[in-house]
Amino acid sequence: MLNKASVIIPPMKVSELGEFGLINLIRSSSARYENSGRTPWQEILVGIGDDAAAWQSDNHIQLATTDTLVQDIHFDLDVINWDELGWKALAVNLSDIAAMGGIPKYALLSLALPGELEVEDISRFTNSMMHLAREFGVAIVGGNVATAPNVVITVTIIGCSKGKAILKRSTASSGEQIAVTGYLGLSAAGLEMFKGKTISDPEISNILRRAHFKPMPRVKEGQILIEQGVKTAIDISDGLIADLDHICESSKVNAKIKIEQVPVHPVVTANFPNHQELALCGGEDYELLFTADEATIARTKQALNCPVTVIGDITEEKLPTRVTVMDSKENIISCKKGGWEHFKNGVFEVKFA
Amino acid sequence: MLNKASVIIPPMKVSELGEFGLINLIRSSSARYENSGRTPWQEILVGIGDDAAAWQSDNHIQLATTDTLVQDIHFDLDVINWDELGWKALAVNLSDIAAMGGIPKYALLSLALPGELEVEDISRFTNSMMHLAREFGVAIVGGNVATAPNVVITVTIIGCSKGKAILKRSTASSGEQIAVTGYLGLSAAGLEMFKGKTISDPEISNILRRAHFKPMPRVKEGQILIEQGVKTAIDISDGLIADLDHICESSKVNAKIKIEQVPVHPVVTANFPNHQELALCGGEDYELLFTADEATIARTKQALNCPVTVIGDITEEKLPTRVTVMDSKENIISCKKGGWEHFKNGVFEVKFA
Repeated sequence: MLNKASVIIPPMKVSELGEFGLINLIRSSSARYENSGRTPWQEILVGIGDDAAAWQSDNHIQLATTDTLVQDIHFDLDVINWDELGWKALAVNLSDIAAMGGIPKYALLSLALPGELEVEDISRFTNSMMHLAREFGVAIVGGNVATAPNVVITVTIIGCSKGKAILKRSTASSGEQIAVTGYLGLSAAGLEMFKGKTISDPEISNILRRAHFKPMPRVKEGQILIEQGVKTAIDISDGLIADLDHICESSKVNAKIKIEQVPVHPVVTANFPNHQELALCGGEDYELLFTADEATIARTKQALNCPVTVIGDITEEKLPTRVTVMDSKENIISCKKGGWEHFKNGVFEVKFA
Repeated sequence: MLNKASVIIPPMKVSELGEFGLINLIRSSSARYENSGRTPWQEILVGIGDDAAAWQSDNHIQLATTDTLVQDIHFDLDVINWDELGWKALAVNLSDIAAMGGIPKYALLSLALPGELEVEDISRFTNSMMHLAREFGVAIVGGNVATAPNVVITVTIIGCSKGKAILKRSTASSGEQIAVTGYLGLSAAGLEMFKGKTISDPEISNILRRAHFKPMPRVKEGQILIEQGVKTAIDISDGLIADLDHICESSKVNAKIKIEQVPVHPVVTANFPNHQELALCGGEDYELLFTADEATIARTKQALNCPVTVIGDITEEKLPTRVTVMDSKENIISCKKGGWEHFKNGVFEVKFA
């Protein structure tokens, strides 16, 4: 028996500890019970704290990830429709597998629902989820249903590496470039629209809605990054700065990004005065953020069918924060902790000096 | 594209469809998107509708299962403590792997929590879960935390077969005996105690509390069943009759059980006048219910370190229900659909004629 009394938890609410603090609590609790000399621990390649867990199997690396969407926290049934909800619940998990460069294969669906919902709505939800699953060759093999006062959806995806390698958060090193796929800010702009920002053009409104509710995970792109020799990646779910900070924390490095180089989506630039904030901190873009040497990044630009933009560097420089944002004259832009952290009011706190 | 319009859903509430109807809806939605000629579908051995999903991997069979516990539906924080909750959330999933005869290996924890909870409570929860995980050599490799108005816990376990076989629900055949490990009714008796039934002996009260909140999944026993040649099993989570009915439905057979042979726990017999009802329909015993020929069952009695009781037979006889309960004189005991089905009021509906 381990001495559990050795860990003293001061009186504190979950809201004070925050999401990342809570993850650390689970990780440290797990670490105390680990027995590194035995299976399955000795097979673990990536444990708590990356986009997906990874372990060595017979001939390849197994991947598993899970994500929960809670009604009125992650979605509002007055805004999102059931078709969109089914899509998004699976897409956010597929994106975690994409961030590991893996192949998603099997999914489990756990569904907690109020009894007064219409069966037709649940049918729309599952059909949309199955549709996306099929796009990526994923089989929904099981799950669980339960009654609940509000809708809670948990999707788990199990996948594997394509070859012998996976993308991790912890392998960035000094001198590497930082790059991102696609354009940023569209999903957060969609959220602003749902919160009341008027968008009169229905076509633009549709683009924003789709970006926020039906993101297309970069599964194929993640696999291509590995083929081209990239080792480090994350998907942008919490926001560019927050997710780059996750890479820096895991890799024990610093990063600087040039704000003018961040590829803000033109629809966002044209319609939202706070477009830089949306692109830097908005989150839920589900693009891939990755680091590699210059030659490797150049190869990914050739290999990928989507835009790849270099936005900064991993550096050994002493900087005020792990992730530092600069303008074109290398002036540091004050940028409070941004990104989307549950429990704490950390959303859109970024201030531009 | 498949023609989704071909499936017409009549106006109906989720509560009218019921838990098993909802599972069928998901299964049929999945089936319409399956492409049986391609991976991963061709590798699936057991899909939606067993205790765990199973698919063929390189050298063995992979297993995955998930279960969600929702506050005020599955547990009441005024009754269960956090230590017990952490244990139970993992135990119910381990039991699903046990029912497949598998080895549990990796777990993912998805935790939705109100911010006002105490961190110390969550620490108790995770420590207890890790403790049980370690008992069975399971590594908690990842998961997810989110804020929510009520506590929702989803645990996913990924495991594998010990050899080349697994236990299924769908392989029972006529002429086989039906057997059960351990004693039944203790967990349901515990629930009755929490609902107000007075138990004055603190030792008995402790036994009931432990049975209901800290069940010990029959993981090792499931593996031994396979070694002895058993092919068909389920864990008793919904209740003996309901779970036997799941076997019968999957295997397209009928079953008859002798009520006097059902091993009611002596504590339940001594303290609860409705002990037979609790043992037949109470659920959450997490014992293993299995079928096999007489010689195989005899071997399991030798090999297992727990009681094994033969309670009836799989039969080709025409019987009034898929599962028929009889007394010692082969009089049929009227027994309405029992067991624990969400959404519908199917709990403890069994009537003894």
